[in-house]
Amino acid sequence: MQVAIVLYPNFTALDVMGPYEVFARLPDTEVVFVAENPGLVTNDLKSVSINVVASLDDVTSPDVVLIGGGPGQSDNMEDGRLHEWLRAVDQTSTWTTSVCTGTLILAATGLLKGRPATTHWGALSQLPALGVTPSHDRVVIDGKYATAAGVSAGIDLALTLAGTMMGDDVAQTVQLIIEYAPEPPYNSGSTSTAPPEILENAKRVLSGRFAD
Amino acid sequence: MQVAIVLYPNFTALDVMGPYEVFARLPDTEVVFVAENPGLVTNDLKSVSINVVASLDDVTSPDVVLIGGGPGQSDNMEDGRLHEWLRAVDQTSTWTTSVCTGTLILAATGLLKGRPATTHWGALSQLPALGVTPSHDRVVIDGKYATAAGVSAGIDLALTLAGTMMGDDVAQTVQLIIEYAPEPPYNSGSTSTAPPEILENAKRVLSGRFAD
Repeated sequence: MQVAIVLYPNFTALDVMGPYEVFARLPDTEVVFVAENPGLVTNDLKSVSINVVASLDDVTSPDVVLIGGGPGQSDNMEDGRLHEWLRAVDQTSTWTTSVCTGTLILAATGLLKGRPATTHWGALSQLPALGVTPSHDRVVIDGKYATAAGVSAGIDLALTLAGTMMGDDVAQTVQLIIEYAPEPPYNSGSTSTAPPEILENAKRVLSGRFAD
Repeated sequence: MQVAIVLYPNFTALDVMGPYEVFARLPDTEVVFVAENPGLVTNDLKSVSINVVASLDDVTSPDVVLIGGGPGQSDNMEDGRLHEWLRAVDQTSTWTTSVCTGTLILAATGLLKGRPATTHWGALSQLPALGVTPSHDRVVIDGKYATAAGVSAGIDLALTLAGTMMGDDVAQTVQLIIEYAPEPPYNSGSTSTAPPEILENAKRVLSGRFAD
């Protein structure tokens, strides 16, 4: 099986590294990072540069395609080479997936039209204009389209798909290997549980990040 | 504040990328990846290469130092340049920390002698020989030493330290920004909850990985 993970400048590292750590541990699975412009691709916070070897032309029929989010999302909303590639690989993919604001890019290609999907909580309100029904679920699966909420939700998406593709026992084994038995020290990870003042803080930090 | 994250060949990506995503979002905080041999450093699964700019000499007094795990741990157990650096920066660090089998490296430097600590469940049995008391807790804090269990546990460690260093509200805000409200699709992330056959599967996959 081949999993293609799309990177672009100003991506959010954990959006892709969470699912990566799951997918790359599945049996007989190759994960390839792919970018419109290969070479060093730097994240939103400017301290992680990943060396991407594969161009879009190099990866033509991945079984799974995943695009993550990050502030660089806003530079990838116009139709062009990346959108063409996403639509092309979607024709033969088993799963077409996104994490966080990667869903906005996927939606902009038209592939999610009329479907339910999720994205970072701060970007959910942008989905209707892209023809997508926003969902507050952490992982949304509709047909062969799987979308995850913000940043860390990609781990849950990848484990869910791992189970569907390779069986519960394989997914559970990977979960144990990456010791994914989370114990967040606070209960502030979603808008439904965070105290109101924390939600206000987060909105302030993210202000301008989502092109609302 | 400066956070130094140590990379070495055959590191496990999520060990470091989880805490990275938390630390790098704290106010007035710089995260720097550092390696004994800077340049492209490739992970255990060979599909992630991170461009590390800083050498050990370039980072002399980080406030927080973190070393992750991965199969490359076994190449970093002998005293030498990395151990000297870890002991040197520990003299002025606020927190000296590790994730997964990074704890074995930290223990080998002598810094954890006589202390409780944790590591990946598959490596816990190696701690006594290094003078460390193994703990099954997911995050262990003893004085200024903080250690985390396997791979994904670094996220919980970083959020815990973020709260201690900068206040609960800052840590909670970061938790909400990275939407860390985990919903693992299985309850198989620790040896105490995984079905026995899954534990056997995981031990088989990891066989030879830990130099027991």
